[in-house]
Amino acid sequence: MKQSTIDNLRQAVGADIIITEDHILEERRHDYSVISQLDDLQGRGAARPGCVAQPRKTAEVVTIVNFCRENGVPLIPFGLGSGVVSGVIANPEAVLIDMSQMNRIRKMDVHNLLVTFEAGVRGSDAEAALNKQGLILGHYPQSMAVSSVGGWVATRACGQFSTAYGSIEDVVFGLEVVLPSGEVFETCPTPRASSGPDLKELFLGSEGTLGIVTAVTFSVRWKPEKQAYSAFYLADMDRGFELQRHIIQHGWEPPVMRQYDASETKRNFPDHARGADALLIMIHEGPAGKVAAEMKECLEIAIDLGCEEAPVSVVEKWFEDRNHVPTFEEFLTQGIIVDTIEIAATWDKIGGIYRSAVTSLGEVENIANASAHSSHCYRSGINLYFTFAAIPGDSRQMSPVYYDCWRRVMEATIAGGGGIAHHHGIGRVRRPWLTAELGNPGVGLLQALKKTLDPLQMMNPGVLIPGD
Amino acid sequence: MKQSTIDNLRQAVGADIIITEDHILEERRHDYSVISQLDDLQGRGAARPGCVAQPRKTAEVVTIVNFCRENGVPLIPFGLGSGVVSGVIANPEAVLIDMSQMNRIRKMDVHNLLVTFEAGVRGSDAEAALNKQGLILGHYPQSMAVSSVGGWVATRACGQFSTAYGSIEDVVFGLEVVLPSGEVFETCPTPRASSGPDLKELFLGSEGTLGIVTAVTFSVRWKPEKQAYSAFYLADMDRGFELQRHIIQHGWEPPVMRQYDASETKRNFPDHARGADALLIMIHEGPAGKVAAEMKECLEIAIDLGCEEAPVSVVEKWFEDRNHVPTFEEFLTQGIIVDTIEIAATWDKIGGIYRSAVTSLGEVENIANASAHSSHCYRSGINLYFTFAAIPGDSRQMSPVYYDCWRRVMEATIAGGGGIAHHHGIGRVRRPWLTAELGNPGVGLLQALKKTLDPLQMMNPGVLIPGD
Repeated sequence: MKQSTIDNLRQAVGADIIITEDHILEERRHDYSVISQLDDLQGRGAARPGCVAQPRKTAEVVTIVNFCRENGVPLIPFGLGSGVVSGVIANPEAVLIDMSQMNRIRKMDVHNLLVTFEAGVRGSDAEAALNKQGLILGHYPQSMAVSSVGGWVATRACGQFSTAYGSIEDVVFGLEVVLPSGEVFETCPTPRASSGPDLKELFLGSEGTLGIVTAVTFSVRWKPEKQAYSAFYLADMDRGFELQRHIIQHGWEPPVMRQYDASETKRNFPDHARGADALLIMIHEGPAGKVAAEMKECLEIAIDLGCEEAPVSVVEKWFEDRNHVPTFEEFLTQGIIVDTIEIAATWDKIGGIYRSAVTSLGEVENIANASAHSSHCYRSGINLYFTFAAIPGDSRQMSPVYYDCWRRVMEATIAGGGGIAHHHGIGRVRRPWLTAELGNPGVGLLQALKKTLDPLQMMNPGVLIPGD
Repeated sequence: MKQSTIDNLRQAVGADIIITEDHILEERRHDYSVISQLDDLQGRGAARPGCVAQPRKTAEVVTIVNFCRENGVPLIPFGLGSGVVSGVIANPEAVLIDMSQMNRIRKMDVHNLLVTFEAGVRGSDAEAALNKQGLILGHYPQSMAVSSVGGWVATRACGQFSTAYGSIEDVVFGLEVVLPSGEVFETCPTPRASSGPDLKELFLGSEGTLGIVTAVTFSVRWKPEKQAYSAFYLADMDRGFELQRHIIQHGWEPPVMRQYDASETKRNFPDHARGADALLIMIHEGPAGKVAAEMKECLEIAIDLGCEEAPVSVVEKWFEDRNHVPTFEEFLTQGIIVDTIEIAATWDKIGGIYRSAVTSLGEVENIANASAHSSHCYRSGINLYFTFAAIPGDSRQMSPVYYDCWRRVMEATIAGGGGIAHHHGIGRVRRPWLTAELGNPGVGLLQALKKTLDPLQMMNPGVLIPGD
């Protein structure tokens, strides 16, 4: 990026908004993706952005968007950098727009249970502000402390309590978005509408390619009256899928339902792992009467299916550790390439995908771990979260092994009839398989949206949309 | 439409698919809108379509779409004709594509609770087929017996049991849509995805302007174990809004929550109306333990707010009559112009909109009725369904009075900060106010979608999108 371009942008939006300090440029080169961290360690790291813009208000975002459009400069949105699918990779010709300084609470409306945060508000700060009023978000990604509410929207995130409270599309009431045209789109503040397609859906999962989310209004909840735990040992994963299916299809919705295979049970709950058993943990929340009824019936269903109760201390342990985000560096420096990959499928297909993906990962040379757990349950099916770890003899093979593991899980999922992305998005790492997910007509729709909203392809180019 | 065009279309898709019989052309001139019926009675009725196409499979829809695009012929989708916002008005240059013959069940998957219907399946037939398996749709618009599943998608419908089971966007798992390009878009069969924006949302509420829905997959439910009723007298509408707000914000979700003002209570429940009281009726459904807990707590909340129990026979009466769709002809021939208008707003705004809309309707000359009830409840707010009836001295004034009443409710809603359409769609009657709902950027987004998906503007022109 020419110095004159940076100077002109400074002139347009204000000198203090445009950062060119070394350590900021360095820190904003990519998101949390394992492969970006590996590339750094092995000397193939992403370039710095031309500059970093840190707007503090929507009008400044508009100015930056207009400047980039008028000057043909790529614009890469950045929340708090917790993305894991290489959705943010900077380059020296781009402006990286860092939303972290738009971090105010705009409105807390306790009567309608509606709360508006600027896009850069940290998840844990949002929850803490709500908790002071006795409220909760109900949306708790593991990245809670390192991700922003705008990032949740851009990636179509899903929280750990989703089975009862829903995913981001269920908790978002409204959005403010700066379009590539520089216009500011705000949704109508109504609980539900049939006034054409729901336009906010265009931006849920758009990964910065169709606009920049500047504010998010959530439909929040009162802190539940009661929270209680239960856990069950499962003879195998299929038994657990059946148990979860019966619970949710009978009309119960424990917010947390997580099922670990034997390998993950041993790793996460070593004190309580039992032979080759898998493990289901559940958190029940809501009015006390509902929680009591739910726990009673879940227990009956579990007993009917031949499952045995496990100590609730496993749930307590999970709850304590739930927001821990591992640092990959310690693995990478030891020559261990690791990652997690989430997918989803209907109940009839999930067992097959579990087995074929774990089997395929098991065929990778020097694989040290191939395991999975589920964490989000629906009447129609469930997600799976695969974890792989491999230790190639030659550390130069870590990157090829990484992509090979991803390929294996993507191919097993597609062959098994599942969906390739449950809640981390497409970014760059999944993009080769998006056509298998959406079909040519679906990809064509996405390309048409891009072409009409961002005809200059300036918004986060290279991400999500095939052929972009 | 030239005879040669009809002949060529017959040649392309099959002679038996293209209908030009008088009584079919006559019947398909418009939907169920009051104003269309009035126009008929007063001799201003819509023209017949050039021809009616009745495809029996998706491939035939593709052929028809391709023919219309290649020949510059407008194409008007028609489900079962229960629309009430003038979304279907035929003209002699257009092909009306009548989806009623695409009425098969494609798949009933009891394991995943997923059921796929072709778009023309009648709501009541869909529910009956499910009931045979012990299943329910959970989506019950009043028009159940006279509307199609594809029509529900196109209009963003909402059923009477929505408070627990959600609106159409919550119960639809997947879609098959023929795009204006002739491509067939099918959603990926996964319970949830973060693979870009949810593309099926483009068609939920598109009112035939962006494609033709050919099949709908629903995420269905087992018939609930228990159903129970409760009802409460309310000192006034505001007290009822407070009661509903407390119930839903405390984490309870009776599928049916309907609140009638004093006028509607007298009209609908004459045997049990009590002075100037409003009335709330509720149906509780689900596992027996949950229903019991819910009813106990709802009663406590109601007593705390000073509401008194009403006999559950009012709920029984509503349940019996719930799918009755009134015939407007008897009113119109007596010179009475009537209609209902649904809107929505957050809790803080709904009381003001109720009062200002009813007051404004009351100022219409010779108004005979201006009343409202609510029927869909959310943590953030609620809908209102206004009913007006006026008897202009001069029957030529019925049409102007109709539009005047609509204007009054739309303006009161916009001035009061609500949303102009809860679940009937925009059609033609609400189109003048869509910019107030979506803003210029929102309307621009809608126009951009239209331009990119249907550049020839052949799909249901004149509906939904301003400037179309």
